[in-house]
Amino acid sequence: MRVAIVGAGMTPFGAHPGLSVKELFADALADMAKTVDRGWNPERVEAVYIGSLSAGQGMQLGNFAPALMEYAGLPPVMGLHVENACASGGFALLQAVLAVASGQVSCALAAGVEKMRDVSGEQGRYWLGISGDTEYERLAGLTFAGVFGLMAARLIDAGELTRDDLARVAVKNHRHGALNPKAMFRKAVALEEVVASPAVAAPLGGLDCCPTTDGAAAVLVARADQADEFTDLPVSVAGFGAATDTLAVHSRPDMTRLTAAGRAAGAAYKMAGVGPESLHLAEVHDCFTVAELIAYRELGLAATVREGAQQLAAGAYELGGRLPVNPSGGLKAKGHPIGATGVAQAVELFHQLRGTAESAERQVAGAELGLAYNMGGSGASATAFVLRKGGRAQ
Amino acid sequence: MRVAIVGAGMTPFGAHPGLSVKELFADALADMAKTVDRGWNPERVEAVYIGSLSAGQGMQLGNFAPALMEYAGLPPVMGLHVENACASGGFALLQAVLAVASGQVSCALAAGVEKMRDVSGEQGRYWLGISGDTEYERLAGLTFAGVFGLMAARLIDAGELTRDDLARVAVKNHRHGALNPKAMFRKAVALEEVVASPAVAAPLGGLDCCPTTDGAAAVLVARADQADEFTDLPVSVAGFGAATDTLAVHSRPDMTRLTAAGRAAGAAYKMAGVGPESLHLAEVHDCFTVAELIAYRELGLAATVREGAQQLAAGAYELGGRLPVNPSGGLKAKGHPIGATGVAQAVELFHQLRGTAESAERQVAGAELGLAYNMGGSGASATAFVLRKGGRAQ
Repeated sequence: MRVAIVGAGMTPFGAHPGLSVKELFADALADMAKTVDRGWNPERVEAVYIGSLSAGQGMQLGNFAPALMEYAGLPPVMGLHVENACASGGFALLQAVLAVASGQVSCALAAGVEKMRDVSGEQGRYWLGISGDTEYERLAGLTFAGVFGLMAARLIDAGELTRDDLARVAVKNHRHGALNPKAMFRKAVALEEVVASPAVAAPLGGLDCCPTTDGAAAVLVARADQADEFTDLPVSVAGFGAATDTLAVHSRPDMTRLTAAGRAAGAAYKMAGVGPESLHLAEVHDCFTVAELIAYRELGLAATVREGAQQLAAGAYELGGRLPVNPSGGLKAKGHPIGATGVAQAVELFHQLRGTAESAERQVAGAELGLAYNMGGSGASATAFVLRKGGRAQ
Repeated sequence: MRVAIVGAGMTPFGAHPGLSVKELFADALADMAKTVDRGWNPERVEAVYIGSLSAGQGMQLGNFAPALMEYAGLPPVMGLHVENACASGGFALLQAVLAVASGQVSCALAAGVEKMRDVSGEQGRYWLGISGDTEYERLAGLTFAGVFGLMAARLIDAGELTRDDLARVAVKNHRHGALNPKAMFRKAVALEEVVASPAVAAPLGGLDCCPTTDGAAAVLVARADQADEFTDLPVSVAGFGAATDTLAVHSRPDMTRLTAAGRAAGAAYKMAGVGPESLHLAEVHDCFTVAELIAYRELGLAATVREGAQQLAAGAYELGGRLPVNPSGGLKAKGHPIGATGVAQAVELFHQLRGTAESAERQVAGAELGLAYNMGGSGASATAFVLRKGGRAQ
């Protein structure tokens, strides 16, 4: 069964001290409802998948899916909470797509929600830290910033990257985020500011790191042959894939590779029958600037990390460039509410491929094929989706 | 795509102070491997779903699926942790079935794992408690035993049940558990003992409550048309369903109903093209004795709770009776390692339908069609599966 995205929405990302996770979820649904041109009818939903890291013990909310569904007025259908660290949202969407692809469900909702600002400081670091290796990394004091700092240092040492290359990712994504009304950081930053930002894990400074924050996102998935019952402007799920890897970076043959990303994207390209050269835009998991540079290589956008950095410096990945990467601002500027991130990537692609981005400045002109790549931990899990403009003709 | 179960295994349920969750998972896989007659090859697995409540913040293990997969030597394919309270296992199995049914995956592994004895006492109650309603139940001191105690009291008050009816569930399931080498409590109990057991939440005594404990279970799911590449004795997934309900019992029209169970089972019966009258055995979620009595009605085994209790008293649900319920001993005697429970129900049906139960005393003679029903919280989520002997002919 072919699958289409027929609605998508999200809350603004950023601090939401007055909203609970239930309210954020309902707000994302309300934003999604605006895109369901033929009228949003919750009773059409037959399965619900909600990605979240802090649900359960963290939020003191078990049975997380039915709890949120009840609050938001969804019917009491199959509902499930899924967790794969920072890739929880991507995996929620993947399950919704599989459920519809199975033919057992004709309409499924994928959502992600997180309130990371309620767990600031020590506890927040702890919450995230458990998604990496415990024995050799977390308990030894190696944070995620530390892991990606080591990757960046190694790539600089090997002559693949320079400090400025890292900073250029932040500059680009802040420029994009400044145009996105849903982004947390809506201001440009200069290359010198990024380079001069206080070290978090050298060579990564504060402006090389994405902010974990609050937010929710929701995507409505349906049988492609019923897409026009929901909207005149659907988007096809042309391909998808997922993969895992070792939790500890030291267990991998090369600590600067994120091979789960490449395997997930490879499966998605293969199913879609396209290669990376056919893409018009991509949303990629840039938890740290170096992660986006590594992603250029893993996703096949560039042959090497060096080549990707050169293309970035040449403007290829800017809005208006050959292949805009993270037109939303990415995790870096849009913000990273853990479980919501993978779903929000699909929200961005949905609008870009329909031509409904909020402004002409933000819209990728003529976008017909997009990639979304979401990662969990230090790359221990990953999802990828190739989405195509139009619903029926795939 | 039609789906079959081609392997199934589990650890003994009970205290495993010397084994980590990773080791329990690997042990369940090793037990499962024995049933894959044509040889267990981990490289066949294309997707992994692991149900657990305490993963994440509880166990300090995020990215739970890749962490366990790496330890057990599974390939780095799509892997996902799912949580729906005590129904986490049932939902893991459901996702594995949907993944294979979609045609995108030809072989998937569903597993559940939990170490509840590491979180005994206050913390364990807290862990479980978050799976019910927080504002009106948990923070007001209403435990799950309290919720089910209220249901039992109401049913007794309404003349649907007697104290002895409750006790008969425990007597039956302990008798069954005594025959099951994997069960935690392998001893019979007398009706008088159950009735005299110290009150936990009147009218429920200690012997009316299942023990939360440690354990893991695993089930290998494959395309039915490839089942004979794994085993000569597959079991078909003839039907499946899932549903949710309000978390708080006071939000439901009738506090003695568990309607999610009925809707999940109804979907499974419909897909299988059978009714409850065709079943040869059932594994049902008996977290408290009253829950099994309510299940008789919700699953359509009896028209009323009273009728179900009468059938129980007449021996209908005993091994050797018309429709053995919980031949494994159920949660009551086999034990309840939260995330493992729903998967272990399928393990029991797999063996019973293949005729490979450990002993003639335990084997349900001539079993060809079985039901498994797993519940989360006070019935806020539920899954049901109808499994049929034989793989290709469905």
